[in-house]
Amino acid sequence: MVKQERAARTRQALIRSAAEVFAEQGFARASVSAISLRAGVSNGALHFHFASKGALADAVQQEAVGAMRRMTASAEAVGGPLQAVVEATHGLVRQLGEDAVLRAGFSLCGRPEGGPGPADAARGVSPRREWQTWVEEMLGRAEAEALLAHGVSPRGAAEAIVAATVGFEVLGGQDRSWLDAGTVTRFWELMLPPLSAPR
Amino acid sequence: MVKQERAARTRQALIRSAAEVFAEQGFARASVSAISLRAGVSNGALHFHFASKGALADAVQQEAVGAMRRMTASAEAVGGPLQAVVEATHGLVRQLGEDAVLRAGFSLCGRPEGGPGPADAARGVSPRREWQTWVEEMLGRAEAEALLAHGVSPRGAAEAIVAATVGFEVLGGQDRSWLDAGTVTRFWELMLPPLSAPR
Repeated sequence: MVKQERAARTRQALIRSAAEVFAEQGFARASVSAISLRAGVSNGALHFHFASKGALADAVQQEAVGAMRRMTASAEAVGGPLQAVVEATHGLVRQLGEDAVLRAGFSLCGRPEGGPGPADAARGVSPRREWQTWVEEMLGRAEAEALLAHGVSPRGAAEAIVAATVGFEVLGGQDRSWLDAGTVTRFWELMLPPLSAPR
Repeated sequence: MVKQERAARTRQALIRSAAEVFAEQGFARASVSAISLRAGVSNGALHFHFASKGALADAVQQEAVGAMRRMTASAEAVGGPLQAVVEATHGLVRQLGEDAVLRAGFSLCGRPEGGPGPADAARGVSPRREWQTWVEEMLGRAEAEALLAHGVSPRGAAEAIVAATVGFEVLGGQDRSWLDAGTVTRFWELMLPPLSAPR
Protein backbone atom coordinates (compact mmCIF):
# COMPACT_ATOMS: atom_id res chain seq x y z
CA MET A 1 0.00 0.00 0.00
CA VAL A 2 2.82 2.38 0.93
CA LYS A 3 4.56 1.22 -2.23
CA GLN A 4 1.48 2.01 -4.32
CA GLU A 5 1.25 5.46 -2.80
CA ARG A 6 4.87 6.13 -3.56
CA ALA A 7 4.35 4.98 -7.16
CA ALA A 8 1.33 7.27 -7.55
CA ARG A 9 3.33 10.18 -6.16
CA THR A 10 6.21 9.51 -8.55
CA ARG A 11 3.79 9.35 -11.47
CA GLN A 12 2.30 12.74 -10.48
CA ALA A 13 5.76 14.27 -10.08
CA LEU A 14 6.70 13.04 -13.56
CA ILE A 15 3.54 14.52 -15.10
CA ARG A 16 4.20 17.86 -13.43
CA SER A 17 7.86 17.90 -14.49
CA ALA A 18 6.91 16.95 -18.04
CA ALA A 19 4.42 19.84 -18.15
CA GLU A 20 7.09 22.28 -16.97
CA VAL A 21 9.76 21.03 -19.37
CA PHE A 22 7.30 21.03 -22.32
CA ALA A 23 6.35 24.62 -21.47
CA GLU A 24 9.97 25.77 -21.29
CA GLN A 25 11.48 23.88 -24.20
CA GLY A 26 8.56 22.75 -26.32
CA PHE A 27 7.54 19.14 -26.81
CA ALA A 28 9.91 18.46 -29.71
CA ARG A 29 13.01 19.72 -27.91
CA ALA A 30 12.15 18.37 -24.45
CA SER A 31 14.33 15.46 -23.37
CA VAL A 32 13.10 12.58 -21.26
CA SER A 33 16.24 12.93 -19.09
CA ALA A 34 15.43 16.55 -18.28
CA ILE A 35 11.98 15.41 -17.14
CA SER A 36 13.22 12.59 -14.90
CA LEU A 37 15.97 14.85 -13.50
CA ARG A 38 13.43 17.53 -12.57
CA ALA A 39 11.13 14.96 -10.97
CA GLY A 40 14.10 13.66 -8.98
CA VAL A 41 13.79 10.11 -10.28
CA SER A 42 15.92 7.88 -12.50
CA ASN A 43 15.31 7.40 -16.21
CA GLY A 44 14.45 3.79 -15.35
CA ALA A 45 11.70 4.93 -12.97
CA LEU A 46 10.35 7.25 -15.68
CA HIS A 47 10.22 4.38 -18.17
CA PHE A 48 8.49 2.17 -15.61
CA HIS A 49 5.59 4.66 -15.66
CA PHE A 50 5.71 6.01 -19.21
CA ALA A 51 6.82 4.19 -22.34
CA SER A 52 7.72 7.38 -24.21
CA LYS A 53 7.67 11.16 -24.27
CA GLY A 54 4.39 10.87 -26.19
CA ALA A 55 2.87 8.83 -23.36
CA LEU A 56 3.90 11.59 -20.92
CA ALA A 57 2.25 14.20 -23.14
CA ASP A 58 -0.92 12.07 -23.20
CA ALA A 59 -0.87 11.90 -19.41
CA VAL A 60 -0.43 15.68 -19.16
CA GLN A 61 -3.44 16.20 -21.44
CA GLN A 62 -5.48 13.63 -19.49
CA GLU A 63 -4.70 15.42 -16.23
CA ALA A 64 -5.61 18.77 -17.78
CA VAL A 65 -8.93 17.38 -19.03
CA GLY A 66 -9.63 16.08 -15.51
CA ALA A 67 -8.88 19.49 -13.98
CA MET A 68 -11.13 21.16 -16.53
CA ARG A 69 -14.01 18.74 -15.85
CA ARG A 70 -13.81 19.43 -12.12
CA MET A 71 -13.84 23.14 -12.86
CA THR A 72 -16.81 23.09 -15.24
CA ALA A 73 -18.75 20.82 -12.87
CA SER A 74 -18.26 23.25 -10.00
CA ALA A 75 -19.17 26.18 -12.29
CA GLU A 76 -22.42 24.43 -13.23
CA ALA A 77 -23.32 24.22 -9.55
CA VAL A 78 -23.26 28.04 -9.32
CA GLY A 79 -26.44 28.78 -11.23
CA GLY A 80 -27.82 28.97 -14.75
CA PRO A 81 -25.81 28.06 -17.85
CA LEU A 82 -24.71 31.62 -18.69
CA GLN A 83 -23.52 32.22 -15.15
CA ALA A 84 -21.72 28.88 -15.31
CA VAL A 85 -19.83 29.96 -18.44
CA VAL A 86 -18.80 33.27 -16.82
CA GLU A 87 -17.68 31.43 -13.68
CA ALA A 88 -15.80 28.79 -15.69
CA THR A 89 -13.89 31.28 -17.87
CA HIS A 90 -12.74 33.01 -14.68
CA GLY A 91 -11.73 29.65 -13.21
CA LEU A 92 -10.02 28.46 -16.39
CA VAL A 93 -7.97 31.61 -16.90
CA ARG A 94 -6.98 31.77 -13.22
CA GLN A 95 -5.96 28.11 -13.25
CA LEU A 96 -4.02 28.54 -16.51
CA GLY A 97 -1.99 31.16 -14.66
CA GLU A 98 -1.36 28.91 -11.68
CA ASP A 99 -1.18 25.35 -12.94
CA ALA A 100 1.62 24.26 -15.26
CA VAL A 101 -0.17 20.99 -16.07
CA LEU A 102 -3.33 22.71 -17.28
CA ARG A 103 -1.25 25.20 -19.25
CA ALA A 104 0.82 22.48 -20.92
CA GLY A 105 -2.27 20.34 -21.51
CA PHE A 106 -3.83 23.22 -23.41
CA SER A 107 -0.79 24.18 -25.39
CA LEU A 108 -0.08 20.58 -26.40
CA CYS A 109 -3.38 20.61 -28.28
CA GLY A 110 -3.11 20.48 -31.95
CA ARG A 111 0.06 22.12 -33.12
CA PRO A 112 2.59 19.89 -34.86
CA GLU A 113 5.24 21.42 -32.59
CA GLY A 114 2.94 20.82 -29.68
CA GLY A 115 3.22 17.11 -29.37
CA PRO A 116 1.11 14.17 -30.25
CA GLY A 117 -0.93 16.35 -32.58
CA PRO A 118 -3.73 14.90 -34.68
CA ALA A 119 -3.60 11.70 -32.67
CA ASP A 120 -5.33 13.52 -29.75
CA ALA A 121 -8.47 13.54 -31.80
CA ALA A 122 -8.46 9.74 -31.95
CA ARG A 123 -7.72 9.37 -28.26
CA GLY A 124 -10.24 12.01 -27.33
CA VAL A 125 -8.13 13.88 -24.81
CA SER A 126 -7.90 17.47 -25.89
CA PRO A 127 -8.54 20.11 -23.23
CA ARG A 128 -9.32 22.70 -25.91
CA ARG A 129 -11.92 20.51 -27.59
CA GLU A 130 -13.34 19.55 -24.22
CA TRP A 131 -13.71 23.24 -23.36
CA GLN A 132 -15.36 24.02 -26.68
CA THR A 133 -17.86 21.18 -26.31
CA TRP A 134 -18.80 22.33 -22.82
CA VAL A 135 -19.24 25.99 -23.80
CA GLU A 136 -21.42 24.97 -26.77
CA GLU A 137 -23.54 22.80 -24.50
CA MET A 138 -24.03 25.64 -21.99
CA LEU A 139 -24.97 28.13 -24.72
CA GLY A 140 -27.43 25.61 -26.17
CA ARG A 141 -28.97 25.24 -22.73
CA ALA A 142 -29.07 29.02 -22.27
CA GLU A 143 -31.01 29.29 -25.53
CA ALA A 144 -33.41 26.52 -24.53
CA GLU A 145 -34.05 28.30 -21.22
CA ALA A 146 -34.66 31.62 -23.04
CA LEU A 147 -31.69 33.24 -21.30
CA LEU A 148 -30.17 34.64 -24.50
CA ALA A 149 -31.09 38.05 -25.83
CA HIS A 150 -33.33 38.10 -28.90
CA GLY A 151 -31.39 37.39 -32.08
CA VAL A 152 -28.21 36.11 -30.39
CA SER A 153 -26.85 33.02 -32.14
CA PRO A 154 -25.75 30.47 -29.53
CA ARG A 155 -23.20 29.22 -32.05
CA GLY A 156 -21.71 32.67 -32.59
CA ALA A 157 -21.61 33.31 -28.85
CA ALA A 158 -19.92 29.98 -28.14
CA GLU A 159 -17.35 30.66 -30.89
CA ALA A 160 -16.54 34.11 -29.52
CA ILE A 161 -16.12 32.78 -25.97
CA VAL A 162 -14.02 29.78 -27.00
CA ALA A 163 -11.83 31.80 -29.37
CA ALA A 164 -11.26 34.54 -26.77
CA THR A 165 -10.34 32.08 -24.01
CA VAL A 166 -7.96 30.21 -26.31
CA GLY A 167 -6.52 33.62 -27.22
CA PHE A 168 -6.03 34.50 -23.53
CA GLU A 169 -4.31 31.15 -23.02
CA VAL A 170 -1.97 31.50 -26.01
CA LEU A 171 -1.14 35.18 -25.42
CA GLY A 172 -0.74 34.42 -21.69
CA GLY A 173 2.04 31.99 -22.57
CA GLN A 174 4.14 35.00 -23.58
CA ASP A 175 2.76 37.73 -21.36
CA ARG A 176 1.21 36.57 -18.11
CA SER A 177 -0.92 39.72 -17.74
CA TRP A 178 -3.38 38.19 -20.25
CA LEU A 179 -4.25 35.72 -17.48
CA ASP A 180 -5.11 38.41 -14.91
CA ALA A 181 -8.61 38.34 -13.45
CA GLY A 182 -9.12 41.87 -14.81
CA THR A 183 -8.81 40.65 -18.40
CA VAL A 184 -11.71 38.20 -17.93
CA THR A 185 -13.74 40.80 -16.03
CA ARG A 186 -13.36 43.33 -18.85
CA PHE A 187 -14.29 40.63 -21.39
CA TRP A 188 -17.56 39.84 -19.62
CA GLU A 189 -18.40 43.50 -18.96
CA LEU A 190 -18.41 43.83 -22.73
CA MET A 191 -19.95 40.47 -23.69
CA LEU A 192 -22.53 39.64 -21.06
CA PRO A 193 -24.98 42.52 -21.57
CA PRO A 194 -25.52 41.86 -25.31
CA LEU A 195 -25.79 38.09 -24.70
CA SER A 196 -28.30 38.13 -21.90
CA ALA A 197 -32.06 38.37 -22.28
CA PRO A 198 -33.48 41.28 -20.27
CA ARG A 199 -35.07 39.96 -17.07
CA MET B 1 19.53 42.32 -63.32
CA VAL B 2 18.14 38.97 -64.46
CA LYS B 3 20.43 37.37 -61.91
CA GLN B 4 19.08 39.63 -59.15
CA GLU B 5 15.52 38.78 -60.11
CA ARG B 6 16.30 35.10 -59.99
CA ALA B 7 17.89 35.49 -56.54
CA ALA B 8 14.85 37.37 -55.26
CA ARG B 9 12.58 34.66 -56.61
CA THR B 10 14.66 31.92 -54.96
CA ARG B 11 14.55 33.81 -51.67
CA GLN B 12 10.75 34.06 -51.86
CA ALA B 13 10.44 30.37 -52.73
CA LEU B 14 12.57 29.49 -49.71
CA ILE B 15 10.46 31.65 -47.38
CA ARG B 16 7.26 30.03 -48.67
CA SER B 17 8.71 26.50 -48.38
CA ALA B 18 9.95 27.24 -44.87
CA ALA B 19 6.47 28.45 -43.87
CA GLU B 20 4.90 25.26 -45.21
CA VAL B 21 7.43 22.94 -43.59
CA PHE B 22 7.19 24.79 -40.23
CA ALA B 23 3.40 24.46 -40.36
CA GLU B 24 3.53 20.74 -41.11
CA GLN B 25 6.36 19.65 -38.85
CA GLY B 26 6.84 22.46 -36.37
CA PHE B 27 9.90 24.67 -36.20
CA ALA B 28 11.91 22.35 -33.94
CA ARG B 29 11.45 19.28 -36.15
CA ALA B 30 11.69 21.03 -39.52
CA SER B 31 14.90 20.25 -41.38
CA VAL B 32 16.70 22.72 -43.60
CA SER B 33 17.01 20.01 -46.27
CA ALA B 34 13.24 19.52 -46.39
CA ILE B 35 12.90 23.28 -46.96
CA SER B 36 15.45 23.47 -49.77
CA LEU B 37 14.02 20.31 -51.37
CA ARG B 38 10.52 21.80 -51.39
CA ALA B 39 11.79 25.07 -52.84
CA GLY B 40 13.59 23.09 -55.56
CA VAL B 41 17.02 24.51 -54.73
CA SER B 42 20.22 23.06 -53.31
CA ASN B 43 21.20 23.27 -49.65
CA GLY B 44 24.04 25.51 -50.80
CA ALA B 45 21.60 27.94 -52.40
CA LEU B 46 19.58 27.99 -49.20
CA HIS B 47 22.66 28.80 -47.14
CA PHE B 48 23.59 31.55 -49.59
CA HIS B 49 20.33 33.31 -48.63
CA PHE B 50 19.85 32.22 -45.01
CA ALA B 51 22.52 31.45 -42.44
CA SER B 52 20.28 29.20 -40.36
CA LYS B 53 16.79 27.83 -39.79
CA GLY B 54 16.31 30.68 -37.30
CA ALA B 55 17.12 33.22 -40.02
CA LEU B 56 14.46 31.59 -42.21
CA ALA B 57 11.94 31.85 -39.37
CA ASP B 58 12.82 35.53 -38.97
CA ALA B 59 12.23 36.07 -42.68
CA VAL B 60 8.86 34.31 -42.48
CA GLN B 61 7.82 36.57 -39.59
CA GLN B 62 9.10 39.65 -41.42
CA GLU B 63 7.06 38.73 -44.51
CA ALA B 64 4.00 38.12 -42.34
CA VAL B 65 4.40 41.51 -40.66
CA GLY B 66 4.66 43.11 -44.12
CA ALA B 67 1.47 41.37 -45.29
CA MET B 68 -0.32 42.46 -42.12
CA ARG B 69 0.78 46.10 -42.54
CA ARG B 70 -0.54 46.18 -46.11
CA MET B 71 -3.80 44.72 -44.87
CA THR B 72 -4.29 47.14 -41.98
CA ALA B 73 -3.33 50.09 -44.21
CA SER B 74 -5.98 49.13 -46.75
CA ALA B 75 -8.52 48.58 -43.95
CA GLU B 76 -7.84 52.09 -42.64
CA ALA B 77 -8.68 53.48 -46.06
CA VAL B 78 -12.22 52.05 -45.77
CA GLY B 79 -13.60 54.44 -43.17
CA GLY B 80 -13.55 55.15 -39.45
CA PRO B 81 -11.40 53.22 -36.96
CA LEU B 82 -14.14 50.78 -35.87
CA GLN B 83 -14.98 49.96 -39.47
CA ALA B 84 -11.27 49.51 -40.13
CA VAL B 85 -11.00 46.95 -37.33
CA VAL B 86 -14.01 45.00 -38.65
CA GLU B 87 -12.56 45.08 -42.17
CA ALA B 88 -9.10 44.06 -40.98
CA THR B 89 -10.31 41.08 -38.90
CA HIS B 90 -12.14 39.81 -41.98
CA GLY B 91 -9.00 40.33 -44.08
CA LEU B 92 -6.70 38.77 -41.50
CA VAL B 93 -8.78 35.65 -40.97
CA ARG B 94 -9.32 35.18 -44.72
CA GLN B 95 -5.63 35.59 -45.41
CA LEU B 96 -4.70 33.21 -42.56
CA GLY B 97 -6.79 30.63 -44.41
CA GLU B 98 -5.10 31.28 -47.74
CA ASP B 99 -1.52 32.28 -47.03
CA ALA B 100 0.91 29.78 -45.49
CA VAL B 101 3.47 32.53 -44.81
CA LEU B 102 1.05 34.65 -42.75
CA ARG B 103 -0.13 31.53 -40.90
CA ALA B 104 3.40 30.41 -40.09
CA GLY B 105 4.44 33.95 -39.18
CA PHE B 106 1.63 34.07 -36.63
CA SER B 107 2.18 30.63 -35.19
CA LEU B 108 5.94 31.18 -34.86
CA CYS B 109 5.16 33.93 -32.35
CA GLY B 110 6.07 33.22 -28.85
CA ARG B 111 5.91 29.55 -28.14
CA PRO B 112 9.13 27.80 -27.24
CA GLU B 113 8.22 25.13 -29.78
CA GLY B 114 7.43 27.83 -32.25
CA GLY B 115 10.85 29.03 -33.13
CA PRO B 116 13.03 31.93 -32.29
CA GLY B 117 10.82 32.68 -29.30
CA PRO B 118 11.63 35.49 -26.90
CA ALA B 119 14.18 36.82 -29.36
CA ASP B 120 11.32 38.15 -31.54
CA ALA B 121 10.68 40.73 -28.90
CA ALA B 122 14.19 42.10 -29.32
CA ARG B 123 14.05 42.07 -33.10
CA GLY B 124 10.58 43.55 -33.11
CA VAL B 125 9.04 41.27 -35.72
CA SER B 126 6.05 39.58 -34.21
CA PRO B 127 2.87 39.57 -36.29
CA ARG B 128 0.75 38.97 -33.18
CA ARG B 129 2.20 41.93 -31.32
CA GLU B 130 1.93 44.05 -34.46
CA TRP B 131 -1.75 43.14 -34.71
CA GLN B 132 -2.36 43.91 -31.05
CA THR B 133 -0.69 47.32 -31.31
CA TRP B 134 -2.76 48.23 -34.35
CA VAL B 135 -6.08 47.14 -32.80
CA GLU B 136 -5.29 49.11 -29.62
CA GLU B 137 -4.48 52.18 -31.70
CA MET B 138 -7.76 51.92 -33.63
CA LEU B 139 -9.82 51.48 -30.46
CA GLY B 140 -8.06 54.46 -28.90
CA ARG B 141 -8.91 56.50 -31.98
CA ALA B 142 -12.51 55.25 -31.89
CA GLU B 143 -12.77 56.48 -28.32
CA ALA B 144 -11.24 59.85 -29.19
CA GLU B 145 -13.75 60.24 -32.03
CA ALA B 146 -16.64 59.32 -29.68
CA LEU B 147 -17.48 56.25 -31.74
CA LEU B 148 -17.61 53.88 -28.75
CA ALA B 149 -20.80 53.28 -26.80
CA HIS B 150 -20.98 54.89 -23.38
CA GLY B 151 -19.04 52.93 -20.77
CA VAL B 152 -17.12 50.73 -23.23
CA SER B 153 -13.48 50.39 -22.24
CA PRO B 154 -11.26 50.69 -25.32
CA ARG B 155 -8.75 48.47 -23.54
CA GLY B 156 -11.32 45.73 -22.85
CA ALA B 157 -12.61 45.92 -26.42
CA ALA B 158 -9.11 45.68 -27.89
CA GLU B 159 -8.31 42.72 -25.65
CA ALA B 160 -11.48 40.87 -26.67
CA ILE B 161 -10.83 41.46 -30.39
CA VAL B 162 -7.14 40.50 -30.21
CA ALA B 163 -7.80 37.41 -28.08
CA ALA B 164 -10.63 36.24 -30.33
CA THR B 165 -8.62 36.68 -33.53
CA VAL B 166 -5.61 34.88 -32.02
CA GLY B 167 -8.08 32.16 -30.97
CA PHE B 168 -9.46 31.90 -34.54
CA GLU B 169 -5.89 31.63 -35.84
CA VAL B 170 -4.82 28.94 -33.35
CA LEU B 171 -8.03 26.90 -33.58
CA GLY B 172 -7.95 27.31 -37.39
CA GLY B 173 -4.59 25.55 -37.43
CA GLN B 174 -6.44 22.37 -36.45
CA ASP B 175 -9.87 22.92 -37.95
CA ARG B 176 -9.98 25.21 -40.96
CA SER B 177 -13.68 26.06 -40.45
CA TRP B 178 -12.60 28.55 -37.74
CA LEU B 179 -11.18 30.64 -40.59
CA ASP B 180 -14.46 30.76 -42.54
CA ALA B 181 -15.87 34.21 -43.26
CA GLY B 182 -19.02 33.17 -41.36
CA THR B 183 -17.07 32.87 -38.10
CA VAL B 184 -15.92 36.49 -38.32
CA THR B 185 -19.37 37.67 -39.40
CA ARG B 186 -21.00 35.99 -36.38
CA PHE B 187 -18.33 37.50 -34.12
CA TRP B 188 -19.08 41.03 -35.30
CA GLU B 189 -22.85 40.53 -35.25
CA LEU B 190 -22.39 39.92 -31.56
CA MET B 191 -19.64 42.43 -30.77
CA LEU B 192 -20.29 45.48 -32.93
CA PRO B 193 -23.67 46.60 -31.55
CA PRO B 194 -22.49 46.83 -27.89
CA LEU B 195 -19.24 48.54 -28.96
CA SER B 196 -20.71 51.23 -31.17
CA ALA B 197 -22.13 54.54 -30.02
CA PRO B 198 -25.68 55.03 -31.29
CA ARG B 199 -25.68 57.42 -34.24
